Amino acid sequence: MAHRFLTLLTDFGDADGFVGAMRGVILSRAPAARLVDLAHHVPRGDVAKAARVLARSAPYFPAGTVHCVVVDPGVGSDRRAVAAAAGGQRFIAPDNGVLGATLDALGGPVEVRIIENPAAMRAVVSRTFHGRDVFAPAAAWLAAGGALEAIGSPAGSLVRLAGTAPEVDGERVIGRVVEVDTFGNLITDIPADGPVAVRIGGQALVGPRPSYSAVPAGALVLVTGSLGTLEVAVRDGSAAARLDLGVGAACVASPAAAESGA
Amino acid sequence: MAHRFLTLLTDFGDADGFVGAMRGVILSRAPAARLVDLAHHVPRGDVAKAARVLARSAPYFPAGTVHCVVVDPGVGSDRRAVAAAAGGQRFIAPDNGVLGATLDALGGPVEVRIIENPAAMRAVVSRTFHGRDVFAPAAAWLAAGGALEAIGSPAGSLVRLAGTAPEVDGERVIGRVVEVDTFGNLITDIPADGPVAVRIGGQALVGPRPSYSAVPAGALVLVTGSLGTLEVAVRDGSAAARLDLGVGAACVASPAAAESGA
Amino acid sequence: MAHRFLTLLTDFGDADGFVGAMRGVILSRAPAARLVDLAHHVPRGDVAKAARVLARSAPYFPAGTVHCVVVDPGVGSDRRAVAAAAGGQRFIAPDNGVLGATLDALGGPVEVRIIENPAAMRAVVSRTFHGRDVFAPAAAWLAAGGALEAIGSPAGSLVRLAGTAPEVDGERVIGRVVEVDTFGNLITDIPADGPVAVRIGGQALVGPRPSYSAVPAGALVLVTGSLGTLEVAVRDGSAAARLDLGVGAACVASPAAAESGA
Repeated sequence: MAHRFLTLLTDFGDADGFVGAMRGVILSRAPAARLVDLAHHVPRGDVAKAARVLARSAPYFPAGTVHCVVVDPGVGSDRRAVAAAAGGQRFIAPDNGVLGATLDALGGPVEVRIIENPAAMRAVVSRTFHGRDVFAPAAAWLAAGGALEAIGSPAGSLVRLAGTAPEVDGERVIGRVVEVDTFGNLITDIPADGPVAVRIGGQALVGPRPSYSAVPAGALVLVTGSLGTLEVAVRDGSAAARLDLGVGAACVASPAAAESGA
Repeated sequence: MAHRFLTLLTDFGDADGFVGAMRGVILSRAPAARLVDLAHHVPRGDVAKAARVLARSAPYFPAGTVHCVVVDPGVGSDRRAVAAAAGGQRFIAPDNGVLGATLDALGGPVEVRIIENPAAMRAVVSRTFHGRDVFAPAAAWLAAGGALEAIGSPAGSLVRLAGTAPEVDGERVIGRVVEVDTFGNLITDIPADGPVAVRIGGQALVGPRPSYSAVPAGALVLVTGSLGTLEVAVRDGSAAARLDLGVGAACVASPAAAESGA
Repeated sequence: MAHRFLTLLTDFGDADGFVGAMRGVILSRAPAARLVDLAHHVPRGDVAKAARVLARSAPYFPAGTVHCVVVDPGVGSDRRAVAAAAGGQRFIAPDNGVLGATLDALGGPVEVRIIENPAAMRAVVSRTFHGRDVFAPAAAWLAAGGALEAIGSPAGSLVRLAGTAPEVDGERVIGRVVEVDTFGNLITDIPADGPVAVRIGGQALVGPRPSYSAVPAGALVLVTGSLGTLEVAVRDGSAAARLDLGVGAACVASPAAAESGA
């Protein structure tokens, strides 16, 4: 039988055993599933961050992988629990926008269902821990060979996060910081295509430079991030701390030739 | 052969390689064991918290699983290292009370042994790292097919943590906060059975409400926690920070009908 | 087929999905590899710490294991990416000294190669995320059966971290703190062989004591650490906080007989 990977992405941290309980539920129902972690220290309830973490990692997994995402500030509300398929992979998540960027990157969903089948959840479902009672068993059900179509009725369109497309104003692109990573790097939504001059937090930077190492330790540097957009970093330091900026901060990019000719 | 899961629960964190060393010892001795994490960021030496984490997660694992718990402030003292069986699962831990709640939940231990067999530990045992030298090899020994009875002599009764049963005073139940989770939720020891009015930290709450989402963001809410007891939360926030309360804080519950009639 | 373990040691944390992306790349290329974590919360860019974490854990793994280390402050510079074999295990890492202590402990490298073979890396290699684009696929390539010799040309000698051997001055040994662990224990580079009196941070201690439990809670204690050197701890507390000391702090050891005779 092919390897069947089942990944977990949560905001549960590593201190309480919530992820441990999910792992137990999964391995009781799909003992051959091979568990893999994407991340568990996503900031609590930060769906937009979780969406980026998923988009950064899920596409690299082999076909057949099941991804189980539980960043779910709406647990117990009427938000739906859904299952989706795209690019040969399958996903289990709350319908809160967390899957959007990844499904887009994989060519769009080929099937989206509401999780309704009692066989795909625990017999008693709490109102506070759907990670254990709904999402883990649903992911296990898929990993154990269950058909996506049997998990529930068609879901129609999914909730989308508010768009983050940068604004184009003539030659200028007005974007923003969409993520701050563990290193304090400021990741923007401006595609990195060609030399640019950037203004952010009162600083002017030219780039993208080939790597963080292109500048001395402690200096600001503009690079191309791992998802292909402009990223502002401090070599061996934190750009977020240096510039006192976070998600939502404005970043304006102009073609470097125009800028250098000014 | 059946899958043989071996879980790890420690307070070693993820920065030093202590858990990495344990994993190496286990896989050298039981290469077919499938490692699973319960949690590694239990607060240092917090046996009561570890006991709750284990009770929250271990019961969901399939029969045959071996759980290895190393939250061991008494390492190097004369506290015993023990192996226990209950509910088809087996446990390796220091005898400091960490197994109590879980063994109870699984119907009580059917066998408890002291870890004495030299074949179930490393040839040289340090006095400061029994996770690597005693608990990991003992867990591997069980996972590789060793019999619990061969691990050492009968242990008799295990150390118990001080009881936390709430006090019943007529219709009132006087309990306390027994755990604060990663989200700042205050988990009490008062069973959630029916409508109640609760007084905690100068606040009066009625519930349990069906879920966190039953109140607006930022509001206090009384819910039924994932282990079936009353839990005080702040939607999208931290009740521990809001009320400035932690483990041990008093919580008094009265039947809601009496309360609403006041 | 033998079990093929592939370990990961990074400073990527658990919030961004960087390790998740590496896991996806590895399992796409070596689906039978069994992933194991050594640690992911090494302080950012701390190569010396990562070298100690690797030395603390890798030697316990069975022959055939592939270790992938990505603590790489020089990513994108001209530092080399290398593969090495020692003691039946293989290693993938940046050539920044991180492998030194472990290769020494395993008897020295029997082969060291530069990672050059395009088959052992992703088709497009970014300048900012070699964990995903170079190190993960190279480790997968070895785990999937690739020969070390085919990964690139001989590397010659590797970068070494600055030595940390303690200074011997007659009967005294002048060493230093080389690591502070998660518990705040101060780990020195002074081998623990026989009774000593130690001066550190204005305190005088005699030991090594058999274990942390040899003193009351809150007291300083000198023990033998898990790697065989002297370690200064506070029982149930943090010696680093108590003494306000960190890596590099001086520690002077004298034979205990002379000290006690003073």
